[in-house]
Amino acid sequence: MTKGVMMYRLYDYLPSGNGYKARLVLKQLRIDYQLVEVDIINGGSRTPEFLAKNPNGRIPVLEVPGKGFLPESHAIVSYLADGSELIPADAFERACMWQWMCFEQYHVEPNIGTVRFWVHFLRKTRAELGEKLIEKKKSGYAALDVLEETLRDREYLAGNRYSLADISLFAYTHVAHEGGFDLQPYPGVRAWCDRVASQPDWVPITAR
Amino acid sequence: MTKGVMMYRLYDYLPSGNGYKARLVLKQLRIDYQLVEVDIINGGSRTPEFLAKNPNGRIPVLEVPGKGFLPESHAIVSYLADGSELIPADAFERACMWQWMCFEQYHVEPNIGTVRFWVHFLRKTRAELGEKLIEKKKSGYAALDVLEETLRDREYLAGNRYSLADISLFAYTHVAHEGGFDLQPYPGVRAWCDRVASQPDWVPITAR
Repeated sequence: MTKGVMMYRLYDYLPSGNGYKARLVLKQLRIDYQLVEVDIINGGSRTPEFLAKNPNGRIPVLEVPGKGFLPESHAIVSYLADGSELIPADAFERACMWQWMCFEQYHVEPNIGTVRFWVHFLRKTRAELGEKLIEKKKSGYAALDVLEETLRDREYLAGNRYSLADISLFAYTHVAHEGGFDLQPYPGVRAWCDRVASQPDWVPITAR
Repeated sequence: MTKGVMMYRLYDYLPSGNGYKARLVLKQLRIDYQLVEVDIINGGSRTPEFLAKNPNGRIPVLEVPGKGFLPESHAIVSYLADGSELIPADAFERACMWQWMCFEQYHVEPNIGTVRFWVHFLRKTRAELGEKLIEKKKSGYAALDVLEETLRDREYLAGNRYSLADISLFAYTHVAHEGGFDLQPYPGVRAWCDRVASQPDWVPITAR
């Protein structure tokens, strides 16, 4: 393993929950890296230079020296955390971790994350967003219902210890209020957010 | 490893691309399993019995004897293929595999898969679907553009050998025409579909 001596480069936008997953893992695993900020609001992820790194035109992208460019937050964190305690050693628990990470990409990020982006960053109004906002809020709350049901009697999502699953789900859930979601009816989710935020070497979402 | 002597049970709906990923992996790894068909069109995945298996109310779900119920197609295939040649041994190539599987869940399945479900199974018309259909077709074609760009000079998606990434992306891409997508302008994608369908022990989407 030469990971420790290589300097990773992370192409990222600080308020991004997807980028935050990578930055939190880098911090908690104490891996040095260089941050390259990309202004996604003004087209920074759609330039020819950026598209050569990720044809899908999205951050985060991890540049791995000698290997190449790795897009997709969950691919990045699974690569960085490979062999660490952030990934359960047990095969079934590891699969449960992936289950929650898939759930996040399908049900949380496109609803809670996208609404936050529209409302908090693009400053779109309810009138402008119309039916799209109503549908995404409904789907976002449905995802929160599943999370609450799960976290009512469990401390962490996979294998009952802190893992990439918690990092992944925490990223957009803990800032859901920025998109107008009310977490008050979700005491299990709120207690779990507090547990994640009290982990060693935890950093807030916009930390470098 | 006691996997070989356990009998897995797969809760599934045969035309589902997500279910197909699991069935294709089970076939290609020659793992015995019992299929339990769930009539998702008529609420079969929203019964109290089913919700006890997956609170998210979706197929496929893998029942692992002595362990529990595992939802999410990509969690299921990563569990089944753990340690097999369907997952690259190299850490970076494995991360590239996950990158494509994340891409599938975010850009392919919700667009190409969902349009196929609306048009081919629910028999919704263009007029009924309106703007939603136009948006999803646009996003689906954008995903196909990224795939074509990648497959123009590559035989497989991750590490240049057949892996879970190919299975995952193939599932909805090869039936995209059922949702009205035209693959004619995508020669790289079509050639790759042929390569996947010529793998040993390949079975078509509705095979048990």
